[in-house]
Amino acid sequence: MTSPLALKNWFPFLNWGKQYNQKILLADLIAAAVVTLMLIPQSLAYALLAGLPPEVGLYASMAPLVLYALMGTSRALAVGPAAVTSLMTAASLGSLGLQGPEQYIQAALLLALMSGAIMFLMGVGRLGFLANFLSHPVVSGFVSASGILIAASQLRHILGIHLHGETLVELVPQLFQQVSHFHFITSLIGFSVILLLVIARKWLKMALMNLGLTKDIADIFVKAAPVVVLLLSILVSSLFELSLKGVKVVGHVPAGMPSFTLPALTSTTVSWIHSLWIPALLISLVGFVESVSVGQSLAAKSRESIDPNAELRALGLSNLGSGLTGGFPVTGGFSRSVVNYDAGARTPAAGIFTAVGLALAALFLTPWLFHLPQATLAATIMVAVLSLVDFSVFKRTWHYAKADFSALFFTFSLTLLVGVEVGLIAGVSTSLVLLLYRTSRPHIAVVGQVAGTEHYRNVLRHSVIEHASVLGLRVDESLYFANSRFLEESIASAVTQHADIKHVVLLCSAINDIDASALESLETINHRLLDSGVLFHLSEVKGPVMDRLKRSHFFEELSGGIYLSHHQAVTELTKE
Amino acid sequence: MTSPLALKNWFPFLNWGKQYNQKILLADLIAAAVVTLMLIPQSLAYALLAGLPPEVGLYASMAPLVLYALMGTSRALAVGPAAVTSLMTAASLGSLGLQGPEQYIQAALLLALMSGAIMFLMGVGRLGFLANFLSHPVVSGFVSASGILIAASQLRHILGIHLHGETLVELVPQLFQQVSHFHFITSLIGFSVILLLVIARKWLKMALMNLGLTKDIADIFVKAAPVVVLLLSILVSSLFELSLKGVKVVGHVPAGMPSFTLPALTSTTVSWIHSLWIPALLISLVGFVESVSVGQSLAAKSRESIDPNAELRALGLSNLGSGLTGGFPVTGGFSRSVVNYDAGARTPAAGIFTAVGLALAALFLTPWLFHLPQATLAATIMVAVLSLVDFSVFKRTWHYAKADFSALFFTFSLTLLVGVEVGLIAGVSTSLVLLLYRTSRPHIAVVGQVAGTEHYRNVLRHSVIEHASVLGLRVDESLYFANSRFLEESIASAVTQHADIKHVVLLCSAINDIDASALESLETINHRLLDSGVLFHLSEVKGPVMDRLKRSHFFEELSGGIYLSHHQAVTELTKE
Repeated sequence: MTSPLALKNWFPFLNWGKQYNQKILLADLIAAAVVTLMLIPQSLAYALLAGLPPEVGLYASMAPLVLYALMGTSRALAVGPAAVTSLMTAASLGSLGLQGPEQYIQAALLLALMSGAIMFLMGVGRLGFLANFLSHPVVSGFVSASGILIAASQLRHILGIHLHGETLVELVPQLFQQVSHFHFITSLIGFSVILLLVIARKWLKMALMNLGLTKDIADIFVKAAPVVVLLLSILVSSLFELSLKGVKVVGHVPAGMPSFTLPALTSTTVSWIHSLWIPALLISLVGFVESVSVGQSLAAKSRESIDPNAELRALGLSNLGSGLTGGFPVTGGFSRSVVNYDAGARTPAAGIFTAVGLALAALFLTPWLFHLPQATLAATIMVAVLSLVDFSVFKRTWHYAKADFSALFFTFSLTLLVGVEVGLIAGVSTSLVLLLYRTSRPHIAVVGQVAGTEHYRNVLRHSVIEHASVLGLRVDESLYFANSRFLEESIASAVTQHADIKHVVLLCSAINDIDASALESLETINHRLLDSGVLFHLSEVKGPVMDRLKRSHFFEELSGGIYLSHHQAVTELTKE
Repeated sequence: MTSPLALKNWFPFLNWGKQYNQKILLADLIAAAVVTLMLIPQSLAYALLAGLPPEVGLYASMAPLVLYALMGTSRALAVGPAAVTSLMTAASLGSLGLQGPEQYIQAALLLALMSGAIMFLMGVGRLGFLANFLSHPVVSGFVSASGILIAASQLRHILGIHLHGETLVELVPQLFQQVSHFHFITSLIGFSVILLLVIARKWLKMALMNLGLTKDIADIFVKAAPVVVLLLSILVSSLFELSLKGVKVVGHVPAGMPSFTLPALTSTTVSWIHSLWIPALLISLVGFVESVSVGQSLAAKSRESIDPNAELRALGLSNLGSGLTGGFPVTGGFSRSVVNYDAGARTPAAGIFTAVGLALAALFLTPWLFHLPQATLAATIMVAVLSLVDFSVFKRTWHYAKADFSALFFTFSLTLLVGVEVGLIAGVSTSLVLLLYRTSRPHIAVVGQVAGTEHYRNVLRHSVIEHASVLGLRVDESLYFANSRFLEESIASAVTQHADIKHVVLLCSAINDIDASALESLETINHRLLDSGVLFHLSEVKGPVMDRLKRSHFFEELSGGIYLSHHQAVTELTKE
């Protein structure tokens, strides 16, 4: 066990760096080559989804990979633009009313810096537990709805039509108006790419294996399929000069490395900061949850574990790096990390090599991208995100628990119809209300003596002896603000139902903590009982709880006594 | 036990109405007379505090009292304008940028209607538990800060100067600028009234008893003191015609009953609704917490209890009534309810008689109020609210628990410096984060066999036998979204620390519930363990949990088995 402040906890590369050798280097280099090939189209596509120029996608994939390699605890996680966070970026920037692409890029940088700062500070403050605000039904409802929204938004590129807005309420009516104006060649490319990618995903591997190829070689073909389709599109597009026939292409992508960027602090950026802090917080939470789930899955395969708070610091730094080098919000993506792992990455150094690969692409490959049709990128996104949409979860959750279903349903429908932020906030609120409801009603049992023993058990479950003048109550939960008022009400109503009692003894064997609200409630209960002529006692109070109560004035005010055992309390109080 | 839909639960007067007789009538009439005398100045003062014309205070005290009498479950609670809700009304209306007193009155009606609708719907939906969002440190920090803000805001009337704004940041600099322009006669009246009221509160009773009066008669004098001071002020003000000498007086108060009012649904009111729903929600929560605490205290004195959800419906209806009859948000006030109880009110009918008394005052007494100095009303408020300010709670809470102190401190300082809404929201957020933190880390013990028994206990607390290949873990909490990720992390790190294990057995004896998030986590744990070559088993699963799990596909996917007892699991798994 090392101290939480140890340098190794902050910079995990100090651990794996020492054991680095030629064999690991080779494995990492191969993985990096595979991931680089995959990331080039993916980065361009997610920049398009976020509403940004294509090169921004490449920039957002370099610095974050290097920074994550220094501070991250997962060996295989690959950090960069991801589908859901790119959609959230588009939605939050779309609501700012920005003028021109220059402002859009500036605001995207700012959003990355803000998300990075939030994540980093959460990590330093060990606030990783805040991700629990996103319960599983909320996350799956949100991800499914996001997948549908992303697919809907990409229809504009695939059909070659104009669509504005981010929600189904905005998109669907326009789609009906515009669909007849679709651009034939663009659509042909879009749907051909979708078809090819789906075939590659579903049948290519089996077909190749039937042709006698080994599983590993077939796998390589499947993984190379998107790059092949990309190259094919570029070839067709440039051969037939499709850009002159109305097909939108990526066009001129400036070659070179990203430059250092820092948004100027003008009144405009201050107003952006004001509008963007809730989106930045939501992007941080969603990005963190996605990243940590992927990271934990991969770590488990090699019996390792990751440290969520270190992950937050690393993701925070990655986003700060992205914001400072012309990028936009990033997270640990699912598909790129799995490919990285499967391709044999052994250490985060693979991420550094991938960053080098992408830098080379940014320096030398951008002229080749000129003829790449936007429809091809949109089709790549569409095939990727439709795997996010999972309708079976609705049926499963409905059968399993109605409360969870309501959180799922609210999140899903509000995300689709009102927007990603409202959907997520509504989901989190539903989860919190459910949490409060769940914790606000602890189990409280009236206890009586099991004949012939000194045990006291629930009168509803056991045949026990009760005393008319002494009411014993056991609370099966620590006492704190969420349930302290319920305790007041329960004791008040228990006393109303037992007319003859003179003593209430609270059996505290299951109480591990009493917070200030609960202390206040105990004092209130004590006074109210006294007002109605009943004394209030405690029994079997645990040591730490006792210590804490001694720091208050409770014992001076308590009308009754403190008893080591409940039996002792009952014996003494019935003797009188 | 009656069904929750029984008519009696909805209209508690059906219970007490049957037993009504002459003796109870007399007691109720006497209490009503005392409370009416007290409410006339108090209603005017709280209207002034909310920034409304004085008659609005009287209107807000009539319909609510009658409606509460029909649906409320507390016998002594008196509903009407209260200090903290009036301050919140002023703050939320102040931020609307309203033009002229007519708009101000319209917006106040709307706020009462909205709070009423929120409370009523919360009551019908049995959402009373939502008041738990307001933990005790948050409430006491908020009430203390509100008391200070109210006192500071009333200085304008006492000194006869101009002050704008609602927070200390706004008020204090103006106070320093303006204090030298104070109006002499106004200040003389203000401070004299404060002095008289403080003397009456602190020493009058003892002085009168020393003079030979009985305790009961001395009590009546003390309670009559504010009315006497009020009459004295009117007398002095009209004799010396102070209104001509620059002393602000209440002035013309229209005589008569309130008329039925309903704000027109224009684009202006729609924009108000948009801005006011969070303030209305906060006023509802604060009003409900205040009312229910007072109601429970008084009910306990006669060994009765109140029904929080019925209280919400009754308060909701009272606020709707207030909004429809020219009033503003109301709640069950502390001082008026205690006076009502002490004066011997036996049933809510006392409230109806008080409403009649106030109606008579509105019809016939308003001309008498012309000369009443505003400084007298402000002094009445100031003396009343300073009893709300409690600094000792800071020291007590600091000693008792630092987490609670942080909630208290944030709420108090942000309420004072930024405003009531931000303060309250920050406090609630702090409480929620603390709740999440508390529930996100359940106690998880590695268990081993107590030698010679079939018991399995915590390896850290007992000397037990462990098996290298089987890891037993006991979670002392139900599994749900707030702690499901922690379970994933704990199991992942436990497996990392035990290199030789082949089986993980989760001892479920303390698990009462597994929600959809936790189910997902269990499936994830199952897959991750399988990925690292470890089988996952459950033991001692409770019946209801088992039933629920059977509605999912979990058992089909589970790599290991389900065992009735933990001992059985360990025996079978170590046999292999």
